[in-house]
Amino acid sequence: MPKLKPEEVELRRQEIIDAARCCFLRSGFHQTTTDEICHEASITPGGLYHYFGSKEEIISAVIEDAARSTVERLTSTTATAQDARSAFQEAASYVLQSMRDADLDSRTRFDIETWAETLRNEKLAAITQRSWVPRRQWLESLIARAREEGMYRAEVDPRGLADLILAILVGLRVGKLMWRDDFDLEGALQSLLLLHAGRLTNGTDLGRAPEVAPSGRGRGSG
Amino acid sequence: MPKLKPEEVELRRQEIIDAARCCFLRSGFHQTTTDEICHEASITPGGLYHYFGSKEEIISAVIEDAARSTVERLTSTTATAQDARSAFQEAASYVLQSMRDADLDSRTRFDIETWAETLRNEKLAAITQRSWVPRRQWLESLIARAREEGMYRAEVDPRGLADLILAILVGLRVGKLMWRDDFDLEGALQSLLLLHAGRLTNGTDLGRAPEVAPSGRGRGSG
Repeated sequence: MPKLKPEEVELRRQEIIDAARCCFLRSGFHQTTTDEICHEASITPGGLYHYFGSKEEIISAVIEDAARSTVERLTSTTATAQDARSAFQEAASYVLQSMRDADLDSRTRFDIETWAETLRNEKLAAITQRSWVPRRQWLESLIARAREEGMYRAEVDPRGLADLILAILVGLRVGKLMWRDDFDLEGALQSLLLLHAGRLTNGTDLGRAPEVAPSGRGRGSG
Repeated sequence: MPKLKPEEVELRRQEIIDAARCCFLRSGFHQTTTDEICHEASITPGGLYHYFGSKEEIISAVIEDAARSTVERLTSTTATAQDARSAFQEAASYVLQSMRDADLDSRTRFDIETWAETLRNEKLAAITQRSWVPRRQWLESLIARAREEGMYRAEVDPRGLADLILAILVGLRVGKLMWRDDFDLEGALQSLLLLHAGRLTNGTDLGRAPEVAPSGRGRGSG
């Protein structure tokens, strides 16, 4: 193997990650072989081994890379926003777009296969868990900013709301893939916007909030 | 095998389904063997085969049975409610309780394993898809009733909102299992109640609803 400069190594590593993601999205998690990844990345098995010791290491790198690039895109989307409201509009626009991406189902498929794998692979479970932290932190700080600026009410808990919003996006993607034509994605997105705007009920609430026991976590931020 | 009356056959079948669910929740989808199910149900492999031809048939029956019993519980919870608001309160209370069930993670684990399996098994995919229909229909009719009674605004789309609510519950369960201690379930539930009550924003909305293209599905119900 020729001696490469550190930046060339990094570039090659990224190319392999991109090729692997491409294979996983096309063929699925289990069907993708190391040979397929080598072919896609134009590298020999020996060359691949120089960068990644196992398929598990490749999968971990793909998960970490996707998390990193998502947060980078989100951060750049909202970094220049003048206030929290326009930052939220930019972020909402980005999310709505990505919910309509042609390859959304492929990505959800890969996620579900990864989740199933984490149930029997603690190392992958830890990576999956960790991969969500930057997204949550980004959203949490955006919500905190929106609260400071008065867009959200003082009673809003940035941590809890960030977790909720991320969970909603996961649920929508699972629903779309699993319930197929029975799932009205556009109707669900419209309902989410109505819900967020507080335009669902005629001032009626279910009056159950006080019955939820405080969790003692993430509440100090309020 | 002794000759059984139809009601005895049905009872035995239900016992096997209950035993199989118990095994799946305890050991996971893939780890559970037919032998383990036989042992749990106190039946011989030959006896089991009389009821179910394969492990796939057992899994399908477990999924269908869970969907049926959930809808039965939800229906009985809301059937006697005097109005939609109290029906929603009962349903919300039931859902909050089940989100705090000690075996919630085991059920989510089973769901994720099932979803992953549906990605390579069309028969199971169809059963999974179908299993959500009664839940959605129940929720859709409850929302329609709430809209008629003025609890929800006229602009609410029962189909879209039902899909959204089911997706949210799925997302919360996935978040709890995958993000583990990083996921503030109680904070997320509190935020959901705040969101539903329209108490999130100070009358600010993201103003994006008009940009969502109408889906042409489920909108006639409005």
